[in-house]
Amino acid sequence: MADNQSKITHSRDRHLAVDRLAALTDGVFAIAITLLSLDVVVPVITESASGSDLIEALIDQWPSYLAYTVTFFLIGAYWINHHRMFNLLRGVNHMFLILNIFFLMAIAIIPFPNAFLAEYGLDVELRGVAAAVYGLAMAALAVMFNLVWWYACWNMRLVEPDCDPVEIRKVLNSYLVGPVVYGLAVALTPVAPLASIAIFLLIPIGYLFEGPIGSIEAGYMTARS
Amino acid sequence: MADNQSKITHSRDRHLAVDRLAALTDGVFAIAITLLSLDVVVPVITESASGSDLIEALIDQWPSYLAYTVTFFLIGAYWINHHRMFNLLRGVNHMFLILNIFFLMAIAIIPFPNAFLAEYGLDVELRGVAAAVYGLAMAALAVMFNLVWWYACWNMRLVEPDCDPVEIRKVLNSYLVGPVVYGLAVALTPVAPLASIAIFLLIPIGYLFEGPIGSIEAGYMTARS
Amino acid sequence: MADNQSKITHSRDRHLAVDRLAALTDGVFAIAITLLSLDVVVPVITESASGSDLIEALIDQWPSYLAYTVTFFLIGAYWINHHRMFNLLRGVNHMFLILNIFFLMAIAIIPFPNAFLAEYGLDVELRGVAAAVYGLAMAALAVMFNLVWWYACWNMRLVEPDCDPVEIRKVLNSYLVGPVVYGLAVALTPVAPLASIAIFLLIPIGYLFEGPIGSIEAGYMTARS
Amino acid sequence: MADNQSKITHSRDRHLAVDRLAALTDGVFAIAITLLSLDVVVPVITESASGSDLIEALIDQWPSYLAYTVTFFLIGAYWINHHRMFNLLRGVNHMFLILNIFFLMAIAIIPFPNAFLAEYGLDVELRGVAAAVYGLAMAALAVMFNLVWWYACWNMRLVEPDCDPVEIRKVLNSYLVGPVVYGLAVALTPVAPLASIAIFLLIPIGYLFEGPIGSIEAGYMTARS
Repeated sequence: MADNQSKITHSRDRHLAVDRLAALTDGVFAIAITLLSLDVVVPVITESASGSDLIEALIDQWPSYLAYTVTFFLIGAYWINHHRMFNLLRGVNHMFLILNIFFLMAIAIIPFPNAFLAEYGLDVELRGVAAAVYGLAMAALAVMFNLVWWYACWNMRLVEPDCDPVEIRKVLNSYLVGPVVYGLAVALTPVAPLASIAIFLLIPIGYLFEGPIGSIEAGYMTARS
Repeated sequence: MADNQSKITHSRDRHLAVDRLAALTDGVFAIAITLLSLDVVVPVITESASGSDLIEALIDQWPSYLAYTVTFFLIGAYWINHHRMFNLLRGVNHMFLILNIFFLMAIAIIPFPNAFLAEYGLDVELRGVAAAVYGLAMAALAVMFNLVWWYACWNMRLVEPDCDPVEIRKVLNSYLVGPVVYGLAVALTPVAPLASIAIFLLIPIGYLFEGPIGSIEAGYMTARS
Repeated sequence: MADNQSKITHSRDRHLAVDRLAALTDGVFAIAITLLSLDVVVPVITESASGSDLIEALIDQWPSYLAYTVTFFLIGAYWINHHRMFNLLRGVNHMFLILNIFFLMAIAIIPFPNAFLAEYGLDVELRGVAAAVYGLAMAALAVMFNLVWWYACWNMRLVEPDCDPVEIRKVLNSYLVGPVVYGLAVALTPVAPLASIAIFLLIPIGYLFEGPIGSIEAGYMTARS
Repeated sequence: MADNQSKITHSRDRHLAVDRLAALTDGVFAIAITLLSLDVVVPVITESASGSDLIEALIDQWPSYLAYTVTFFLIGAYWINHHRMFNLLRGVNHMFLILNIFFLMAIAIIPFPNAFLAEYGLDVELRGVAAAVYGLAMAALAVMFNLVWWYACWNMRLVEPDCDPVEIRKVLNSYLVGPVVYGLAVALTPVAPLASIAIFLLIPIGYLFEGPIGSIEAGYMTARS
């Protein structure tokens, strides 16, 4: 293997491998996030409807606007975190690529639970199921995100050698909040679906004010000045 | 923090952070702009329809062609301006990323007000609501665009140190036209919806002949020759 | 203007401006080309249908497979030519960006005439209209392509100074075939719609064996060996 | 030709040609893979349905979840292999671009056979047709993948000169498994459709544990340390 490696390793390989994976990943994020808008549809009204009927039909669609806003923001926040971690990557291997595909699978499916919650979240009877489906999808996404980055950091050859392991560990630990909170929200759905939905709304708001990996953020500023 | 920064700042960081944000942004723009075509649908006609019936059905769809053209051009113009400003960025921080996500949220939803105006813009009764929805979406987009770039320039560390602050201020001031004009168009919708729609049509035409930031444009030509 | 230019021109500007325009352009191409598949739909059959009924329903959809193949290939061919010309660009200006947006508008709408021809191309009565719509869209696309590149070459500052003007003129002339042939096909639709459709099928086949800009192609190979 | 080449060959040509082709290719992959989620739809239930009815409706959709997972993973695996081979490219020519477009055509259509199998795969009567359509699409994709890379390697100027031909031949041979296995699965559909479907499920699982080009994988790690 080491022999083959020397034959086919080119100087631009790391660059190409990480950058093209980043390109595919950005593409899936961009498409999944934009497809969310397909669930905000033009309301159909009766022939003789007046302007105020149309306004009412628009207002009645508020769950789809809320779902769009919250889920768009959440996928955006995942993208921020995912590409912050990508910055630390010095290469990829087969298993990392596989794990990243499963992560993208969880990202690309998000328009489904999003539309599902918007459709059934208002119905007292069905709200529990709707919240459970949304929560499970979000929990799966959070788990996959953790798997990708725990693998990359555990298999240390994938991470830049000049990163501080203690720092990285702290960041990884902060990511564990995701699966725990979404798991909790799912557990709450049979008894208190509104509490679960409240958690879904609060998570992005919390993120707004303090990113879970604020400490890595500094790495974004160049030291040029 | 300064300590962490030195540990995890790599020479390619600025490049990666800005370039990957640009990639996601370009992706959302490209998808939102292309999804506009989904609202130009193949007309359904009756079994026994003749060729001239089909032509008539095609012509009856003219609002969707007009909406496609105007909105496509408008998003394109936003893209031009957004990436001109991106050229001046020397880094990103958490708040900038958050603001950019909200801006992308406003871009990605555009197919909705676009289809809405194409659907109800011809109805005398409903035209006011249709114009208001379109105008509000466009005003929100213009506000977000301004927020992103005022923040970037106010927080000066995000902008290339060799840019002239007076020049940048002039450019930023020119962007304020957007929220003002679209706000005005929205205010007009209850009394003169056709005037609002005329404004929506005139803005891109005006942009055709003179970009609001013509003075920055020169920066696109290399000094190679 | 020259003054402003020196203040805001950075060494990476040309790179960024052309590359980001290329990124948006590639994005619109990739999405428009992939959206063509949405018109190949799973056939709906009756409850009691047998396997051979399903096969028949699949075969009945052959126009949508043909349209997908031909149009996909054609957009692909445009992409090849567009990015070959992009290789020669040394910068972009406001007018070039505007023209490119109109070109992208013509690319992004292609799924519409494609679905239209697949829907009505078999009907003897409606075939003429279907061919005219497809032909007009393709002619508009060809005209926009020519406008973009004639402008870039006429405004010589946009093209690499080490390109041979005679060579570029030859390439540009070869592109004029597009508007002429599609214009001809549109003119034929009222009298001989099948001939128009035959032209639509033959153009990509002709391209298969000899690209219109074969002479520029050599530029793709590095002189590294 | 050689004369023209020298006039228009620029140092960044190889870079641009391969990288922009990679960008379009990544774009088509990202969109096709994400569009798979459109076939996972929110179930429609009757007005008076209870929470358990909704859960049942969700569970009844299991074929679409399975199809999403398997096909997403499969396209992801193709992407991994395609971009590994791309790493070895030193340039592209007209025929390579053409072949790559046909390959992308086969990628972009995948949502269709995927939805088709999910729709009819459970019906005892129709399962054979559904499996044949899926298998044929996958076989065509595998054939195109092989054509692209056999052409690139046969036409040796397209491949980095420092690659070991024996190594590349081994990798190419391993890719032949795809057309053979999917061809076999198609041949089985009239007599044993469930066996075909089992093959479709097993191929990605097999890939999970050992990529067909494990030996090239080492090339992904930089020798920086």
